[in-house]
Amino acid sequence: MRATVLEGPRKVQVENVPDAVLPGPEGVIVTVERTAICGSDLHLYHDAPTGAGIRLGHEAIGTVAEAGPHVRSLKPGDRVLVSGVIGCGVCTACLAGQPNVCLADKNAAFGTTLDLPGGQAEAMAVPFADLFALPIPDGVDDEEAVLLTDILPTGYLGALRASIQPGGTVVVVGLGPVGIMALQCASLFGPARILAVDVVPERLARAERLGAEPIDARLAPGALQVLEATGGRGAGSVIEAVGADATILDAVSCAAPGGTISVVGVNLTMDLPFPMALVLLKSLTLRAVFAPIPGTWRFLVPLLQSGRLSGLGETFTHRMGLEQAPEAYELFDSRTDGVLKVLLTPNP
Amino acid sequence: MRATVLEGPRKVQVENVPDAVLPGPEGVIVTVERTAICGSDLHLYHDAPTGAGIRLGHEAIGTVAEAGPHVRSLKPGDRVLVSGVIGCGVCTACLAGQPNVCLADKNAAFGTTLDLPGGQAEAMAVPFADLFALPIPDGVDDEEAVLLTDILPTGYLGALRASIQPGGTVVVVGLGPVGIMALQCASLFGPARILAVDVVPERLARAERLGAEPIDARLAPGALQVLEATGGRGAGSVIEAVGADATILDAVSCAAPGGTISVVGVNLTMDLPFPMALVLLKSLTLRAVFAPIPGTWRFLVPLLQSGRLSGLGETFTHRMGLEQAPEAYELFDSRTDGVLKVLLTPNP
Amino acid sequence: MRATVLEGPRKVQVENVPDAVLPGPEGVIVTVERTAICGSDLHLYHDAPTGAGIRLGHEAIGTVAEAGPHVRSLKPGDRVLVSGVIGCGVCTACLAGQPNVCLADKNAAFGTTLDLPGGQAEAMAVPFADLFALPIPDGVDDEEAVLLTDILPTGYLGALRASIQPGGTVVVVGLGPVGIMALQCASLFGPARILAVDVVPERLARAERLGAEPIDARLAPGALQVLEATGGRGAGSVIEAVGADATILDAVSCAAPGGTISVVGVNLTMDLPFPMALVLLKSLTLRAVFAPIPGTWRFLVPLLQSGRLSGLGETFTHRMGLEQAPEAYELFDSRTDGVLKVLLTPNP
Amino acid sequence: MRATVLEGPRKVQVENVPDAVLPGPEGVIVTVERTAICGSDLHLYHDAPTGAGIRLGHEAIGTVAEAGPHVRSLKPGDRVLVSGVIGCGVCTACLAGQPNVCLADKNAAFGTTLDLPGGQAEAMAVPFADLFALPIPDGVDDEEAVLLTDILPTGYLGALRASIQPGGTVVVVGLGPVGIMALQCASLFGPARILAVDVVPERLARAERLGAEPIDARLAPGALQVLEATGGRGAGSVIEAVGADATILDAVSCAAPGGTISVVGVNLTMDLPFPMALVLLKSLTLRAVFAPIPGTWRFLVPLLQSGRLSGLGETFTHRMGLEQAPEAYELFDSRTDGVLKVLLTPNP
Repeated sequence: MRATVLEGPRKVQVENVPDAVLPGPEGVIVTVERTAICGSDLHLYHDAPTGAGIRLGHEAIGTVAEAGPHVRSLKPGDRVLVSGVIGCGVCTACLAGQPNVCLADKNAAFGTTLDLPGGQAEAMAVPFADLFALPIPDGVDDEEAVLLTDILPTGYLGALRASIQPGGTVVVVGLGPVGIMALQCASLFGPARILAVDVVPERLARAERLGAEPIDARLAPGALQVLEATGGRGAGSVIEAVGADATILDAVSCAAPGGTISVVGVNLTMDLPFPMALVLLKSLTLRAVFAPIPGTWRFLVPLLQSGRLSGLGETFTHRMGLEQAPEAYELFDSRTDGVLKVLLTPNP
Repeated sequence: MRATVLEGPRKVQVENVPDAVLPGPEGVIVTVERTAICGSDLHLYHDAPTGAGIRLGHEAIGTVAEAGPHVRSLKPGDRVLVSGVIGCGVCTACLAGQPNVCLADKNAAFGTTLDLPGGQAEAMAVPFADLFALPIPDGVDDEEAVLLTDILPTGYLGALRASIQPGGTVVVVGLGPVGIMALQCASLFGPARILAVDVVPERLARAERLGAEPIDARLAPGALQVLEATGGRGAGSVIEAVGADATILDAVSCAAPGGTISVVGVNLTMDLPFPMALVLLKSLTLRAVFAPIPGTWRFLVPLLQSGRLSGLGETFTHRMGLEQAPEAYELFDSRTDGVLKVLLTPNP
Repeated sequence: MRATVLEGPRKVQVENVPDAVLPGPEGVIVTVERTAICGSDLHLYHDAPTGAGIRLGHEAIGTVAEAGPHVRSLKPGDRVLVSGVIGCGVCTACLAGQPNVCLADKNAAFGTTLDLPGGQAEAMAVPFADLFALPIPDGVDDEEAVLLTDILPTGYLGALRASIQPGGTVVVVGLGPVGIMALQCASLFGPARILAVDVVPERLARAERLGAEPIDARLAPGALQVLEATGGRGAGSVIEAVGADATILDAVSCAAPGGTISVVGVNLTMDLPFPMALVLLKSLTLRAVFAPIPGTWRFLVPLLQSGRLSGLGETFTHRMGLEQAPEAYELFDSRTDGVLKVLLTPNP
Repeated sequence: MRATVLEGPRKVQVENVPDAVLPGPEGVIVTVERTAICGSDLHLYHDAPTGAGIRLGHEAIGTVAEAGPHVRSLKPGDRVLVSGVIGCGVCTACLAGQPNVCLADKNAAFGTTLDLPGGQAEAMAVPFADLFALPIPDGVDDEEAVLLTDILPTGYLGALRASIQPGGTVVVVGLGPVGIMALQCASLFGPARILAVDVVPERLARAERLGAEPIDARLAPGALQVLEATGGRGAGSVIEAVGADATILDAVSCAAPGGTISVVGVNLTMDLPFPMALVLLKSLTLRAVFAPIPGTWRFLVPLLQSGRLSGLGETFTHRMGLEQAPEAYELFDSRTDGVLKVLLTPNP
């Protein structure tokens, strides 16, 4: 079968690879129909060693082609979405939908190691499918289903962990795909105001259409503008969705006393210069999260079905075939042509 | 001065009474400009002993006419709204905005005893005004201000204490003024669905305009329709805003396993026939609340200012002068002429 | 094999019954070694129709004799404890250890219906054993293991749901086995005081040894004594562990404003005379719970292992053979001979 | 009157200063009887500019000598303890006992600026005394009262904000006075295990007497030993009570996935090298807090009165007169002679 393989820094190819095989009696093979490129894929894309050989992709939906004998809730022909992160499949955390804190320390994202080939391919093998795959629910369209595999749960957790108070003020720093998910989810927690910080006019315009107050960080530092907009006090909840050292520092700077900074941007440094004095003097909380994806579905699916969360599909600005994956990565990395998120269609 | 006085069952008169006097050095006298009749006033109206002499009203706004020497945050001329419920003014609960759980057991509503004359009058005396009166904030109109004195905080607490989950289903039983406040506040907690039960077409139509799914209890029992609408499971959160024995039983009946029933309707019986078996077998929680009014203002005011809560003024269907208080009570009690809530204007 | 069968009101027999068979590929057969009689068994014992034929018992531990082919975490020879309550075994609530709110509405206790034969027998069949049975952990003795099948989780949930505040006051009404479990678990939440109400001197003495303040309800009404002991205010948390109408009313009466009543006593009436006025005027919360047993093990097992919870085995006052089950029921029902809880040993 | 004045780096003198005067109509003057030196005083002690002139001390108790005309709850002759941190005295945060998040941004500790002279003196002026001073409650001894002015509330908040789960594991890094307070408060939240890390044998021995498992960081890195003691998983809750860069990094390293690090050690750097990658990959929460002292009293006082918190006075290893303040600072800074905390007695 065909799969997207990372061969080295900025070098992605679509190659012939061995067909997916059943990953144990509790797994399934899924014929992939839609799969997306995630901002976190770019971390790999930039830093891969030559000859890495990783089969990419952790956001995918499709149809069950084959189901192991112990699978209970799925059968061939079922259309499913697949959690981007899985775990051991046996511990109480995995059973409860929280493979991110798998008690066997086996949490892993598809498409990030050689052991767990990804979904930017014609098919993928999904272990413990009763836990990590979900039949696409009625009333959820395909693109929403793709978002449920990773970035919508991540944005939701980012908002949930920001300790938003009814009547409170939320800042979202960074309006890329995850930031926009977080922004829409933040509104579930009753804030009076959402301030949305970015430097890209289209992104700011979308945030404004969603009811947020846009803050253009090209004009003045974002944190400064947030402080001005809040009478010098700052915001009780700040969601950081970029992951750069500078934006994390910004997020801490514009948090109000007693506030919370919830980091959903990916930052993998071990020596971020951190303003501990501010955290102490302002009694702050800072959090990050690797999302417990399956555990969020029971909250998010009804919100999609009822239309309380809507318009999420706008996040996909480009739709391409699987064979175009190299160009898709290049485009996504270039941040040109208004690209926000790219959807690939291995089996349209 | 003129005040609305309850003289006996269904007998309300506007009478000359002694002028309001300063209730201690921390109190103020407020010239009342807007004051509303509350559903809970009808409990008194129906049951008052002859010659009761209670000066009614616990929902009022106006202008400070005189301020005691220890008052810090208010001065004559300030326009204020007054908490319908007050307490000792000294204990940590009162200081924290929760006179409903006053540690000196001195919580009381204006206009319900001879000791604390009410606000359906030309003026009212407000003790401990730094705690129990609030300058009407910019961006909050007069009718919203009246709602902040009681029923919006009560509806908010009813929603807060209903343990609404993002993506969950909420039922509001009874769409009178408090029920509608609760319904709008319920949406602050991210539910996917709000089911709104009543028997009055106009009320159901308003709920539908606010995004709820109307359930007309004239067609079939409300609890039954809720169960049908939820696949037999019931709703995780039920807000009871009527206070009748039958509707409280209904509310318990249509709660899902693990769910919460939050009672904001006033029921003062000591032997409600209660389905304890359902509470046990379904692992339910049932709550009521006498609202901690001042403690809710910091959440609710920003929501009004930002427009996240809006259209609340529609709740007032009738506006009358103070001298018309007897007719106003009669009308409100009759439930005719589409009456939902009546606003009186002692000093227009 | 031999099993305890309920044949009619107060009529229990040990009879030959068909051997336990595997309840599906995910189930196991357990050879029962220790099994206890629960207060809730007495509800059945009193009310059973003639010829009921129910095989009793929902508190049992033993050794896996046979495991279905899909079972992952258990094998023959493993010593296990069994959750007294199970569910469908497939839904997200069951997977998360909360069969009490099973989404398929299939929650059931062993030994309460013909469909789910109980554990007061030589062997029992346990469906979905990966979820509902737990290898007895190191550091947990057999009698503690029996308590983990029902009453310790129930007492724990009763305490958890009582909203105990650090420095707060807790009342436990009823010091039978579940009440004592609740009392010991209440201390996990940091109360300053625990008031323990009963009429049996031995029970009061045990509570006092555990650090509680005994209140002998033979001397004066329990609620009255609680009010006196709390300066008239009442307690912020009340755990009701009797289940009688009168004690539930007592529990509400002695709750402080803003407080919570957590009912773990079994009361299956549909028309309990309920003091709704008190609930409203004091802003109370009342809860009951059918315990999510497996979901509590990860909290309770470490507490037993570290000795933070200890001395629980004292709850068993009588130990008898399986064949003595009829006498055991008679004794337990009589409340004589200092009986608190009876342990049966089918396979010693 | 005599007061302890900081004149420069490591230069403390007891000097004649102007008598304390009433700080407004809502303030009191307190004749100081007991006052302690806090670890945070050493930050000033090390870094003071020459001629600083700050009158030190934020932990003090004594007797009201004079009360302003608006003070309600105190009168001359009352023995009181004084919150080490105060705020504007008017905002809702201050009224609710949380001057640390004062809405007017006027939170300040006594004895840290020229504007707010401290309590290591014969007398001190306490503004807004109804909020920031508390009559010493019956059943609380003088040394416990001193601890209630700062370090017991700080330790309590540190434990509260560590998200301790019943049955969980807590690590306390650093067993100085605040660490020991945090350790004792941690036990209020039901952990199965408390691991106590330090390098001083006496401190480790005291922690062990309090039920903790001592970890001697002289033998191997503390984080490593915690990981070993928890099967490689780490602890769900880590309380950092040192404030050094290295120990904060340690605390993050030994937190379990999903865990919380609660920092009560004072670290005022703006560029702590921070392991953001660990925070993300383990879904961690990190918090610090400037304690809301008055708001903790209602929780802590009953715990002291009932003896649930006890033995805290052992924290004071040295008791000296006010005139010995210079030697006291030198001793405390030297960490010799087994010094843990020094109590001064201006008016014995």
